[in-house]
Amino acid sequence: MRIYGFQLSFRMDAETSADITTPVQDQVRASGIHEGFVVLFAQGSTCALSTMEFEPGLRKDLFSAMERIAPSDIDYAHHRTWNDGNGRSHVRATVVGPSLTIPITKGRLDLGTWQQIVLFNFDIHARERVVIGKVFGEP
Amino acid sequence: MRIYGFQLSFRMDAETSADITTPVQDQVRASGIHEGFVVLFAQGSTCALSTMEFEPGLRKDLFSAMERIAPSDIDYAHHRTWNDGNGRSHVRATVVGPSLTIPITKGRLDLGTWQQIVLFNFDIHARERVVIGKVFGEP
Amino acid sequence: MRIYGFQLSFRMDAETSADITTPVQDQVRASGIHEGFVVLFAQGSTCALSTMEFEPGLRKDLFSAMERIAPSDIDYAHHRTWNDGNGRSHVRATVVGPSLTIPITKGRLDLGTWQQIVLFNFDIHARERVVIGKVFGEP
Repeated sequence: MRIYGFQLSFRMDAETSADITTPVQDQVRASGIHEGFVVLFAQGSTCALSTMEFEPGLRKDLFSAMERIAPSDIDYAHHRTWNDGNGRSHVRATVVGPSLTIPITKGRLDLGTWQQIVLFNFDIHARERVVIGKVFGEP
Repeated sequence: MRIYGFQLSFRMDAETSADITTPVQDQVRASGIHEGFVVLFAQGSTCALSTMEFEPGLRKDLFSAMERIAPSDIDYAHHRTWNDGNGRSHVRATVVGPSLTIPITKGRLDLGTWQQIVLFNFDIHARERVVIGKVFGEP
Repeated sequence: MRIYGFQLSFRMDAETSADITTPVQDQVRASGIHEGFVVLFAQGSTCALSTMEFEPGLRKDLFSAMERIAPSDIDYAHHRTWNDGNGRSHVRATVVGPSLTIPITKGRLDLGTWQQIVLFNFDIHARERVVIGKVFGEP
């Protein structure tokens, strides 16, 4: 049984999503693990991880849904704590969640054909977003 | 330390939920692992995993909440990409999320009394849904 | 490779959140594991786990967002099943989700500076909430 840790960084624009499947799959390959899983974690309180079919339409639709959960045109108590304006970013990140664990079989991520690993920068500023990974399993 | 992989398939109607606790517990028993956890992953971009008290009322209530997050009576940019009609299915799946990790103590899943493992087929078509599992831990 | 299990209990008021970062970090330290991850699981169908910047403003904002997903002033089919009134609690718990997996590097949780582990008691009653944890990895 083996563990292999990695860290990935992505320069992301404000309120956008990124397909990080290829860099994660590259790390899984580098780990040499064939049967196991990878733990992924989005570091920070205004970013989150999930999976989706990464195409331009859904990228928009997802942010439209986020507007229904945490609209941009309302007041947030958070703004009075820090005098900033990213209350919606925090709420969206908490609802989607920072952690994602994906099984590995025969050295490959067990994703569906139209299912990509997606990192969300919900912040209202461009940010360098960091994903921590740990691959566990048998070579 | 041991790893035990499995795959479960469920024939599911459009926009419905299924209690998969028993088949998962059966796999945990088959694994022989007494102290550890199981990684579960819903393969595909229109299905998701979480836990809930699986009773008919809540099964309805959950889909009513999904209507608030991703309504069925609005337009989705996704529909223009593929000319299909399941934009809401994708959005709901991404928000709920595909991965769930449950601890195992003394050979049993650490679920609460009224807490079942629930698989959602958010797609607008009946689908064969696949859950990949990896049990990790000590016999 | 080592596994270390623990259980934490928190007395929580109705519809509130708690920062459980310190007790989890204490368990990680007690485990002696330096490279790995911790699996956390909120036991029960009306509680959930995620991360957020734990400050009074956001604690309020998060529950305001939950009102949009599962309002308190509407009827739930769940209420007719059990004749109770916590339908919204169940729905919120399922959407946020019970499981969270956090990597550990050099003996510390890989959280961001403003990112705390947060336990939600979505129930409409005060509850003793239980979090099950399993730390995995290398000493």
